[in-house]
Amino acid sequence: MTADKGVLPGIKRDVPTAIHVQVSEHIRLRIAGGEWPPHYRLKSEPELAQEFGVSRGTLRRALTTLIEEGLLRQVRGRGTFVTSTTIEPAIAQKLSTLSEDFASQGVVTTTSVRECSLIVPPQPVAALLDVAPGTQVLRLVRVRRTDQGPVALLFNFVRTDLAPGIEEVDFTSASLFGVLEGTYGLKIATARRTFSAEAATADVATALDLNEGGPVQYLQQVTYLADDRPVEYSDVWIHSGRLRVTSLLLRR
Amino acid sequence: MTADKGVLPGIKRDVPTAIHVQVSEHIRLRIAGGEWPPHYRLKSEPELAQEFGVSRGTLRRALTTLIEEGLLRQVRGRGTFVTSTTIEPAIAQKLSTLSEDFASQGVVTTTSVRECSLIVPPQPVAALLDVAPGTQVLRLVRVRRTDQGPVALLFNFVRTDLAPGIEEVDFTSASLFGVLEGTYGLKIATARRTFSAEAATADVATALDLNEGGPVQYLQQVTYLADDRPVEYSDVWIHSGRLRVTSLLLRR
Repeated sequence: MTADKGVLPGIKRDVPTAIHVQVSEHIRLRIAGGEWPPHYRLKSEPELAQEFGVSRGTLRRALTTLIEEGLLRQVRGRGTFVTSTTIEPAIAQKLSTLSEDFASQGVVTTTSVRECSLIVPPQPVAALLDVAPGTQVLRLVRVRRTDQGPVALLFNFVRTDLAPGIEEVDFTSASLFGVLEGTYGLKIATARRTFSAEAATADVATALDLNEGGPVQYLQQVTYLADDRPVEYSDVWIHSGRLRVTSLLLRR
Repeated sequence: MTADKGVLPGIKRDVPTAIHVQVSEHIRLRIAGGEWPPHYRLKSEPELAQEFGVSRGTLRRALTTLIEEGLLRQVRGRGTFVTSTTIEPAIAQKLSTLSEDFASQGVVTTTSVRECSLIVPPQPVAALLDVAPGTQVLRLVRVRRTDQGPVALLFNFVRTDLAPGIEEVDFTSASLFGVLEGTYGLKIATARRTFSAEAATADVATALDLNEGGPVQYLQQVTYLADDRPVEYSDVWIHSGRLRVTSLLLRR
């Protein structure tokens, strides 16, 4: 084991502050200054210990502090990474919903339901849902927030012939896919999602704390059952400063 | 086989225009008016023939015209769909590149190379590429255009220790992944892509024919080799009006 020598300028042995506290503060500054950006993979523990001139035990104590603070995260078999400062649901990669992705990442969100009623949808939505013009569907309008504020404004249109009575569900706590799959026994199979940058309308800007006309991430989705019938259409508006859509992709 | 009866108002038997031409014009208007939006799946041929009050042969002739015009496309086993009016590369779903996705969809693009030189990257890029501060990497700046105009502005940073001499390649015709895999024998394995809506800077706006401060789709990517080393970092700016990022997703 290496002795705790102050190799790196800034790590001082002759001050009352414990060495591991100095190391974690050093790393904290590198992260805050952008030198170690989100998703940066730290060098191995022996390399880092050598670089800081501290023992591996001291280094590990510093890393543990930063992991507990949420600034670093360890991925088994891959190493230690700088945590992203924005939430990054992988909804571009798998057919999960925002609420599922938040839950799996331990992000606490609250949902407020602005509307949950039967309406006649605009004709393009009726066409994509494969319902006759004039047919009523559920319109569900929700805002999802984290402790940072609102992150997404969701408009879902759901075929009620496939989910009769769904307008009675309290979507403050229930998830839409959960209800469709659990309560109605529907087999959700595929979806097509498109992503584009749009200018926020006044309504979207107000709902998401954005400037009107400023950029907002727009996601359009059509969800299909296993028998290929469309069940749900949605328009989702996302606050990019608080939530970045992510995709982890394989070449082959 | 049903006789050609003018059931639908607008399809007329007592005019010189052939029935199939009237039917295709009818469908063209529905698409243009948004009644049949992009990705709308048409009813089955027997149902449509009945709705228009024409024979299946006549209907099929009308559909063939629209397929040839690029307004409709047939997907084997799934039916006939309205074509999207924007290019929709599935780069949120698989680790393909824009050029590969364009090629597979038969979209003709041209590339202009604005810069292809060795530079010292900003420190966050160096960190994500896992190179020491001060190390030179390739910076490749390109604009991709379709016949609609510029669709994407790409800044790639590539590790030259893994691809020595890559700055000599003519990227007007060569693709970056093609060169890394073909010329250098590198095994590109995974990537992490994040998507967000940003306000276009003056440079980005000029390159993509957008308004400064207006919304632009931003994509950040880090690409890794099979041995987990990062090989490439990129910032990509996309004109959402001309190109929508798409993902076809499976629930299980």
